[in-house]
This record gives sequence, C-alpha cells and structure tokens, in this order.
Amino acid sequence: MNLLLLEPADFIGQGRVRLAGRRLTHMREVHRAAVGDSVRVGCLDGLMGDGVIHALDTEHAELSVAFDRPPPSKLPLTLILALPRPKMLRRVFQTIATLGVPRLILVNSYRVEKSFWQTPFLHPDSIRENLVLGLEQARDTVLPEVIVEKRFKPFVEDRLATMAQGTQGLIAHPGDFPPCPRALPGSVTLAIGPEGGWIPYEVELLQEEGLQPVQMGERILRVETAVTALVSRLF
Amino acid sequence: MNLLLLEPADFIGQGRVRLAGRRLTHMREVHRAAVGDSVRVGCLDGLMGDGVIHALDTEHAELSVAFDRPPPSKLPLTLILALPRPKMLRRVFQTIATLGVPRLILVNSYRVEKSFWQTPFLHPDSIRENLVLGLEQARDTVLPEVIVEKRFKPFVEDRLATMAQGTQGLIAHPGDFPPCPRALPGSVTLAIGPEGGWIPYEVELLQEEGLQPVQMGERILRVETAVTALVSRLF
Repeated sequence: MNLLLLEPADFIGQGRVRLAGRRLTHMREVHRAAVGDSVRVGCLDGLMGDGVIHALDTEHAELSVAFDRPPPSKLPLTLILALPRPKMLRRVFQTIATLGVPRLILVNSYRVEKSFWQTPFLHPDSIRENLVLGLEQARDTVLPEVIVEKRFKPFVEDRLATMAQGTQGLIAHPGDFPPCPRALPGSVTLAIGPEGGWIPYEVELLQEEGLQPVQMGERILRVETAVTALVSRLF
Repeated sequence: MNLLLLEPADFIGQGRVRLAGRRLTHMREVHRAAVGDSVRVGCLDGLMGDGVIHALDTEHAELSVAFDRPPPSKLPLTLILALPRPKMLRRVFQTIATLGVPRLILVNSYRVEKSFWQTPFLHPDSIRENLVLGLEQARDTVLPEVIVEKRFKPFVEDRLATMAQGTQGLIAHPGDFPPCPRALPGSVTLAIGPEGGWIPYEVELLQEEGLQPVQMGERILRVETAVTALVSRLF
C-alpha cells in the first residue's frame, strides 16, 4: 500500500477522514505509522495529495488531507483476456491496475474451463477490491473499467471492430508470427489467450476484425507474467 | 506444467522413466493424461524431447522417452535482487526461471527486513523446487544459478566489479534518471532494490562499481512485476 486510497464514505468533514479496517491495520502494522506522520493519499477516481495523522488507535485513524496533483496517466490500451483460472484472475486484476491498463475485457475461449466462470472473484465487489489493491500499489487513483463478455463470438463479431477502431490490434499467439513490436506510439488493442492459447478458429475470428498475431518467443509464460511482459514491451 | 522435467532418479532403464508424486498427480488431474498419450519431456540441465505413456495408475506412471532438441537459450543477464518478502521470493524464483534468467544474486539491503532471511524458501531444496516449477512452465530444462550474498557491502565492493565486467550495469531506481533502455544487444547486470527502493548510500556504492540508475516511470511495481517488466524491456 504505497497510497492511502480514500472514498467519499471516509470523509467526516472538509479535508478530514476517519479510517478503520484493512487500511488502518496496514498503517499500524506494516507502516508502523504514528500520530504526526505524513502519508500519501488519493481520492478514488480523483486527485492525489498528502495526509497527516491526527489520531490513531486500535479502532480508528483520523487524518487531515489535501489534494493537489493528478494521478499518473493510463496506458492507451484495451486488453482482451481469456478468463484465467480464479487464483490467477485475482492477481491479474491487481496487476492491470498497477500497470495502468484502463480497460480490461474478460472473454470466454474454447480452452477456458467452464467452472472458472463460477468464481467469486468475478463478483463486482471482489473485482473492485483487487483493482483497489493494484492502484494502492502503483500510486494511482483511477479504477480501470472491467467488462465481462462471456460469449466470444458475439463480442468479437459485433463489438470488437468498433472498440479497436483507430488502434493497433494485436493477438499474443505463439508460432511463426512477427515478434511483438516495441514502444508503440499510439493506442493498442491486445488479445491474450488462455493457458494453452487461442484455438485457430478464435485467431481467425480476431484476425477478421483486424487484429494481427505477434509472438513473444518460445517460453510459455503464466498469464500474469505475459500481461506484464507484453505491456512493458508495447509502451 | 508444460514440460515433464526428468531427473536421473526417474530413469528405470534406457529411455524409460517411472514417476510418482507431484508430477503424476498433475498428469492425471490437470492434463487428464491416458495410456498412449504423448507428452513433452526434458532432462534436468539437458535436452528436451517427447515421451509416451505406457502405464498409468494412481501410484505410478511409466513412459518411454527420447531427447532430440536443446532447451531455449537463456538471457545474457545477471540479476541482483534485494531479498524480497518470503511469499514474493517464492514466486520470484519461479518467474526468473520461466523468463530465462540464468543467474540470480540475492543481496541484503537497508530496507530488507531482517526476518526475511529466516524464510524456509531460502533452503536449497525449496529454491530448487520453485526453480523447477518455473522451468516446467516455460519449457526449459536448465536450472538458473542462485547465489545468496547476505552482506551487501562486501559483495558490491569485492565481487560485483568482476561479475559485471563487459556487461551493461543498470540499477532500477525511481527518480530523475534516464528511462530503462530497450532491446539491448549485449549482456546486462541489473540490480533491483527492495520494496521502498535502495537507499542513496546503496545506489552510490553500486554506481562506484559502474552501474547506472535507470527508471521505469512513476508507478511503483511489486518486485515480481518489476522483474518481468524490466527483463521484457531490456531484451
């Protein structure tokens, strides 16, 4: 937690917040914060700034806060991801928020196990909780948008073209394809498959909407590692 | 597990192996393997090839195996890493093996909590277990070298210069430094600090040995994410 992320319900007055729960525990036990300490703060979906701790006990912390600077900019990226297995999904939400990915679309794929769609980590409260953890890590305040598209074909055929318009569309796919480009100047729409990869039919469908396959070498990366590696290379 | 990694003790004859334990469970429960199936195999620190399952029950699997191709090449990188917290350390071992980092040096730093050095994940058997998991993910056979240097100053002053000779030496460090370079042609020695970063004294010491600070932007990445992002950008 490199930023104390504040929500409207935390405010008890103008420039004054009261905290309990996870953030209080983290301040006390990890940061070993004390009265008088300064901490970096941010308003969810708003500005960042600084806070000073005025009161701190086992139940609550009270801080005065002021906001004066914008959060870091997001990447010009829409990330389309075949739904990962639940344990990985949770970390992926944190990672994309940390990296500054502004929009994540979770889609089905032939190689996604049906049971993955039942995970509680897809509940909106859980998605939000993990995105917030990622923002606190990076020092960002703006929640990424997460869209769940459970049916692959209608999403790709009916909505992908509009979404990808004016962007460079890429499919991360092992094989005899050009290497993933580096340091692109513009916006990107990037589709990353499940463990085991997209099936040829899915790649064809994505290609029909203008996305081009690119590869990252022989090594097979876990989804979370692949997301970070691709984002780091593209921007 | 994208590769069945075999060790000398697995062999019951020429080109014949018998497996039990974790790898058997994974073959049965995740891959749902059956007699007659082909699987990719590799010899630890040796060649890769293919295997065919001849027998499979709840206790054992028997395969005939043949090896005909080299593992993927490693990156020309020595990674120096301030010891991460235990849970992260375990994942870092897997990640560096997956990414193809051939040599990892774990060092102390002012901001490394002393208790981290007590973790069982630093036991050689545990290090090896996690490196193997990373190799199985990537389809590689060659174990990275892991060196534990508990004292920062003697390591940097006495051994780093020799180790970094002929390589481009970099310190990942937030601040007003040049951005991390991309797609370097030669060998690199890269030092990544702990949560909270290196202290100025440590950066100075690393600089005296010829390493140059570079930054990755405003966002603060978890160690595992930083390792992947830096490696992906450098090579």
